[in-house]
Amino acid sequence: MAKGTLVIISAPSGTGKSTICRKLLGKRRDLRYSISCTTRLPRPGERHGKHYFFLEKEEFKRKISRNEFLEWAVVHDNYYGTPRSFIESATKEGNHVLLAIDVQGAMAIRRKIPGSILVFVAPPSLETLRERMTARRDASHHIAKRMANSKSELGAAKNYDYFVINDDLEKAVHQIDCIITAEALRVERQETTDLAAV
Amino acid sequence: MAKGTLVIISAPSGTGKSTICRKLLGKRRDLRYSISCTTRLPRPGERHGKHYFFLEKEEFKRKISRNEFLEWAVVHDNYYGTPRSFIESATKEGNHVLLAIDVQGAMAIRRKIPGSILVFVAPPSLETLRERMTARRDASHHIAKRMANSKSELGAAKNYDYFVINDDLEKAVHQIDCIITAEALRVERQETTDLAAV
Repeated sequence: MAKGTLVIISAPSGTGKSTICRKLLGKRRDLRYSISCTTRLPRPGERHGKHYFFLEKEEFKRKISRNEFLEWAVVHDNYYGTPRSFIESATKEGNHVLLAIDVQGAMAIRRKIPGSILVFVAPPSLETLRERMTARRDASHHIAKRMANSKSELGAAKNYDYFVINDDLEKAVHQIDCIITAEALRVERQETTDLAAV
Repeated sequence: MAKGTLVIISAPSGTGKSTICRKLLGKRRDLRYSISCTTRLPRPGERHGKHYFFLEKEEFKRKISRNEFLEWAVVHDNYYGTPRSFIESATKEGNHVLLAIDVQGAMAIRRKIPGSILVFVAPPSLETLRERMTARRDASHHIAKRMANSKSELGAAKNYDYFVINDDLEKAVHQIDCIITAEALRVERQETTDLAAV
């Protein structure tokens, strides 16, 4: 059995990343979601153990000291970390793992797991991004901060493998679904025993 | 507009390559078929200008001398060649081009067009391959010759980008469809103007 692939998705805040991830997970039975740890407070509707593991700062630091994170960082004054063991065991079992993470995190993980694939999801335009955040009633100083981040994040897209524009949700989901299917068919990901068996 | 991609498909004889190509062309409006030239005789059901351009040896040689082929070769005592102009104009217009060709041809074209993608389609097993050729009533000395070729072709799969097993026709078609979709989303295939526009 071939090993599963780690699929990393980055998108400027408000691009629809969470919805895309949820739909992808509904579509593919061979896909698992890597739940990140964070010390930030849950947004309305976010649940511990589903969207994030919401941890106290002390607990987060304990995990750092035990080397339990593949990468961790401080963003907007909060800690974020990617648990190592889940990704390792799920891909070993042949499942693909979906990980939503910012640009810096994506680059850090690519250095640790070179075979991971990086997908950048962009909004149709920065204006659309602002509208979505406003509709979500994000605080205006948050919006300004995130808009600045988004502009610099878009520049980072050139370091990714794939670039998907979310101008149509179903289309974007289909495209990422295809990327996962296609990557699994890459010759270098298929074990030589698979090739010899035919 | 991004340039289209040249998608090269190789498969041991009898793997179902023609059916796969036909179904792919029916599925994707952005896909064109590169019709090869050959001096071999048409098989039952094969039509000039659809499956191949069936040419006299003299005409074929004239085209060689005019540099009209991206590559050409002699296989089983017949000439085969890939017309250059169609691929160049279709991909320039933003369409993807599907080209069914043997392993040697695929390698020759990759050298000429490094951005082309190579898909190897394999039968579930060599035994299945023999059965399909027998069912198609190929002459037995042809079958023996092709079986030997197929074995060596399978070894060449490691030089391809993607490896698809045709154990289920619809699944194989879907997989190649996904490969084409995914490749068009690769960052290096998207023009920098596309990235700047978001």
